[in-house]
Amino acid sequence: MTSDGTLELIRDFRAGRPRALARAITACESGNGARVVAELYALAGNATTVGITGPPGVGKSTLSAALVRKARTLGRRVGVISVDPSSPFSHGALLGDRIRLAEHFTDPDVFIRSMASRGHLGGLAGATADATLLMDAFGFQFIVVETVGAGQSEVEIAELAQTTIVALQPGSGDSVQLLKAGIVEIADIFVVNKGDHPMADQLRREIRSMLQISEHGAWVPELVTTQAVHGQGIDELWDAIERHAAYLVESGELEQRKRERFAYQVRSIAAGRIRALVDGRIDVGSAAGDPYDAASQALASLGIEE
Amino acid sequence: MTSDGTLELIRDFRAGRPRALARAITACESGNGARVVAELYALAGNATTVGITGPPGVGKSTLSAALVRKARTLGRRVGVISVDPSSPFSHGALLGDRIRLAEHFTDPDVFIRSMASRGHLGGLAGATADATLLMDAFGFQFIVVETVGAGQSEVEIAELAQTTIVALQPGSGDSVQLLKAGIVEIADIFVVNKGDHPMADQLRREIRSMLQISEHGAWVPELVTTQAVHGQGIDELWDAIERHAAYLVESGELEQRKRERFAYQVRSIAAGRIRALVDGRIDVGSAAGDPYDAASQALASLGIEE
Repeated sequence: MTSDGTLELIRDFRAGRPRALARAITACESGNGARVVAELYALAGNATTVGITGPPGVGKSTLSAALVRKARTLGRRVGVISVDPSSPFSHGALLGDRIRLAEHFTDPDVFIRSMASRGHLGGLAGATADATLLMDAFGFQFIVVETVGAGQSEVEIAELAQTTIVALQPGSGDSVQLLKAGIVEIADIFVVNKGDHPMADQLRREIRSMLQISEHGAWVPELVTTQAVHGQGIDELWDAIERHAAYLVESGELEQRKRERFAYQVRSIAAGRIRALVDGRIDVGSAAGDPYDAASQALASLGIEE
Repeated sequence: MTSDGTLELIRDFRAGRPRALARAITACESGNGARVVAELYALAGNATTVGITGPPGVGKSTLSAALVRKARTLGRRVGVISVDPSSPFSHGALLGDRIRLAEHFTDPDVFIRSMASRGHLGGLAGATADATLLMDAFGFQFIVVETVGAGQSEVEIAELAQTTIVALQPGSGDSVQLLKAGIVEIADIFVVNKGDHPMADQLRREIRSMLQISEHGAWVPELVTTQAVHGQGIDELWDAIERHAAYLVESGELEQRKRERFAYQVRSIAAGRIRALVDGRIDVGSAAGDPYDAASQALASLGIEE
């Protein structure tokens, strides 16, 4: 982007033009967002951010659509980020998901964005962090980050949200896997969706058992049952989100999470830049060599002592 | 690992004990593999490595099981790496996949490993690179890296293999998505699996059309039809792999790919180390600050000029 283009973009962004928000996020995704973020970060810091994660088919997008509807009835301006690390083969699904949000397409106070970034130095989680920051700076008060279950990225993306909701469905046998995969530790709220399923009670029992044997801090993760497709349990979920938000403020954990999020973002950006710098320092002549040793040498040639 | 432990591990590895290979891979996964790799990398460089990627349900593991069987009839020692970036919610599926390889569980010349790493500095792709190198060094001659379609990681993992197979199934509507997602560019061989499906012809036509409008080098990606579950088309797929292997040697591209793979690995390791170093340099006091600027400052404090 030219310098003039960036100035115009920032002006339009400050003037509240949704197109400018969209373009700013695109700039970040393609690794050209540094200046835009530098100009706009000071406007951010007011939004409530909620992450929703869970296995495919659990109803994450129905849940986020229901939360969006609830937030709108309360007059909040809402941003939705759909993160799909497995994008190449599931764009179709994403498109289907967005159809569930179709009722909000013409609402100027709802902004929906899918992320499937490749160019961002900090990877997908870095691009999502930028998008969250920009939506916040744009004045969205409630931001939902919805991500398909995806190992490392999902845990990283959950770290970007103030409140992480882990959604599960009865009869799927996911709960034991969750425990092993460290997903229980990231959940602030568990949602048992499709709560009319005959095995819903069993899943609730399993979650309660997991909570008893897992480690958590002062906040004991809440357990909410929903049937998102009928809007049932959404008020209860909203209340749980508000209780968690209040807890974060009172306990001082909100500031702590902001610092961690910031550190995470900085680390990702720095690592991305180093990756580019190191590129020119790799001795590919020794391509059959020891990669760990070559990495040490490349870093040493940049003046970095380990 | 203690220094003594590492020495013993390396001795057992050189003696051909499969447990030592398993432990060496685990050491790499958890970020403690530098010394092991340094001692063993010189033994690697002889294996044929094949990556298989494609959407969930296409039959990747049935395909790799069929390739393993074929390789065994030719007397090759075979390693299989199952990469699943979406692990937290799909361990069950992975387990199911491994059952397809069950006939080889007692065969000492087949080594199967699932990867779902968190600790590795270079991420999942870095851990997979290490595992490939170690299997190669251990004497496995044919290594299959099987990965569920997963955006960036999948492209990265494909880069680690000499030959990349993209598997598709008829009637799924995946082909257009593939073109958009840059998957066509990474395919050396397309496999249309479930080739008895009524829409198999249409998928083949779509792939041929895509190939006509996409860019490829001197190697024109081959198109093989299989019914992996019945072992049909596997001989043809094997022949295509051998033709591609011969092409790589004759064209000099093999050396080129090795250099790129090496550079990729070094870059990942270096970036991971920097991530750790930068951690201590982030000024979290300014947690509401500009993350791009903070990254520049952290790098500057390490003496790195951008």
